[in-house]
Amino acid sequence: MTTMQELGTPTALIDTQRMQHNIERMQERMNALGVRFRPHVKTSKCPSVAWAQIAAGAQGITVSTLKEAEQFFDAGITDILYAVGMVPSKLPPALALRQRGCDLKILADNAAAAREIGSFGKAHGEVFEVWIEIDTDGHRSGIKPEEDVLLEVASVLQDAGMRLGGIMTHAGSSYDYDNPAALLAIAEQERAGAVRAAQRLRDVGLSCPVVSVGSTPTALSAEHFDDVTEVRAGVYVFFDLVMRNVGVCTVDDIALSVLTTVIGHQEEKGWAIVDAGWMAMSRDRGTQKQQHDFGYGQVCSADGKVLEGYILSGANQEHGILSRTGEPDRSIAERFPIGMRLRILPNHACATGAQHPEYQAVMSDGNTETWLRFYGW
Amino acid sequence: MTTMQELGTPTALIDTQRMQHNIERMQERMNALGVRFRPHVKTSKCPSVAWAQIAAGAQGITVSTLKEAEQFFDAGITDILYAVGMVPSKLPPALALRQRGCDLKILADNAAAAREIGSFGKAHGEVFEVWIEIDTDGHRSGIKPEEDVLLEVASVLQDAGMRLGGIMTHAGSSYDYDNPAALLAIAEQERAGAVRAAQRLRDVGLSCPVVSVGSTPTALSAEHFDDVTEVRAGVYVFFDLVMRNVGVCTVDDIALSVLTTVIGHQEEKGWAIVDAGWMAMSRDRGTQKQQHDFGYGQVCSADGKVLEGYILSGANQEHGILSRTGEPDRSIAERFPIGMRLRILPNHACATGAQHPEYQAVMSDGNTETWLRFYGW
Repeated sequence: MTTMQELGTPTALIDTQRMQHNIERMQERMNALGVRFRPHVKTSKCPSVAWAQIAAGAQGITVSTLKEAEQFFDAGITDILYAVGMVPSKLPPALALRQRGCDLKILADNAAAAREIGSFGKAHGEVFEVWIEIDTDGHRSGIKPEEDVLLEVASVLQDAGMRLGGIMTHAGSSYDYDNPAALLAIAEQERAGAVRAAQRLRDVGLSCPVVSVGSTPTALSAEHFDDVTEVRAGVYVFFDLVMRNVGVCTVDDIALSVLTTVIGHQEEKGWAIVDAGWMAMSRDRGTQKQQHDFGYGQVCSADGKVLEGYILSGANQEHGILSRTGEPDRSIAERFPIGMRLRILPNHACATGAQHPEYQAVMSDGNTETWLRFYGW
Repeated sequence: MTTMQELGTPTALIDTQRMQHNIERMQERMNALGVRFRPHVKTSKCPSVAWAQIAAGAQGITVSTLKEAEQFFDAGITDILYAVGMVPSKLPPALALRQRGCDLKILADNAAAAREIGSFGKAHGEVFEVWIEIDTDGHRSGIKPEEDVLLEVASVLQDAGMRLGGIMTHAGSSYDYDNPAALLAIAEQERAGAVRAAQRLRDVGLSCPVVSVGSTPTALSAEHFDDVTEVRAGVYVFFDLVMRNVGVCTVDDIALSVLTTVIGHQEEKGWAIVDAGWMAMSRDRGTQKQQHDFGYGQVCSADGKVLEGYILSGANQEHGILSRTGEPDRSIAERFPIGMRLRILPNHACATGAQHPEYQAVMSDGNTETWLRFYGW
């Protein structure tokens, strides 16, 4: 146990009470809507966080790299969806995980990948569980629900003796909206497209036990998940300023921040210089085109109170420029003296977390615990 | 030794021949202009790279965090400038480094920090070598050459028994220019401001042995460094697309790239999906407002040939969207089939490197060596 005052800066802080509140809010919603919940742990890359999600009721996890799969499997979690399209070079590490007992599910959205999975699986005597990725909003990967290739991919996998685990989709474009009606519409589009794709498989006698959908905005906006079996979401565990602008949390829900120290001033410009630059905050400027641009982050007091109007307006590698929006604050040096500590709320929790080897988890008594996280591939 | 074909993706590659060329180009220029050279190692955070710079003639290094100072000192480098303003909470680790034999120089740009350094030094019987940061272009930190506080800071340090090591400045605004005349002008402004600040200290009998200036654009653009004793630069060791747009390198000088694999397509949009998203490239969009916007990076063949007009136009965490600028390429799936490997040149080498736990250094025989890098604070 360390006190906040003993921490070096910059440091990534987790407000564990806020995190727990976010976890419970999501899980209770999923329980009420009658679907399983499989959190995406790419946001935290931290077993302590994932175990808190599982303790609240999550069933399995979603990962974005095989390194995440390996690390979380080593931490004791076995039900893992690797939610990025499989390619031949990643089949050997995926096989190794399954042979160690990991219930790893892999993904395909094209016939070439399906054939590679099938022939590699047959050659190694492994029945891979494969989910088919569906594109319900045009933002990235996947097969559209009505495309012929959906049936082709499923048939290739079945003919090669692989297990058809289900379909999954992710309406990543939900991040582009900021009103409840639009979010409700994209959530329904995501749900309906996934259900339709599953129905097309079942109509020709193919198996599709799982219908998996989700993103933080759609998970928190959908009215119902009829015919969906599970929902996925990642960033809700911490939330961030992008999600505040989307409208699915308030700034007071944001559980991740960067603790920083004031190291200088440019008084005539109304600047304080802090030791959180883009290396600590990330280069993510996700709020730039949203309704409220927070620069590189929202400034808060050391104990987490939002200091309205003060943002990180600029960032170099290890220097952040703190200023007031609108009129420069000529009293900046008195307001934020050298050595003063502040917290900065991030634009994008996944990107900011990724800059840090560890989190300092702030407990209800104000002391902190080190929670390791990992990176790389 | 590993062959390129055996590497997993995404992976950060260093083209060691290009890197060596970049190191020699800079060092030869510094030698010809009669100044010492102190590279900024925040770009690589990798002892193998720093030792190549020192082998070519660099004298000492510049760091942006005390963790870098510790890591490079542990790797055998003793002459280290910590080029971020000192604050009280960082004096104990700075003292520990000096007590272990590290010739660490620290920085101040305000009287409050100077007083803290002085009183902490006196209390611990340590004579810190302190350099004063000068602001020659208004982009960030530092004291303007003509400000009264320059003499105040120097006097506070001298009166407390600290060593006045010199002055340093960094014309970071040089990144905003893209023509030789403007770069020459900002280089001269940087040099003249630093020399003027040093002169003001010497005029009142204060010591100022070092006059340290630099940034990659100004180091490569200055006509002369009269009265300057050393130059600093960082990103030149790898270069990147931002520096290509500034005009101080070509794309064929860029020594850092990310090796990636094609994992899918959206043919009607002319997209290939690759496994290098923003986690591998960073969120840096430094070319966005420059003369040539490269999106999240320039696409090259696996052996490094630029594929003109193909860029990473979008990035999610572990997915990159590869497309042609202008008219969509409807033959994208034949051009870039599933499993094909490509290299992506980064916007900003410092930011892209920071996403990776290690580099794969590609040697002249085509084999690769693992060069570890570190992160965090």
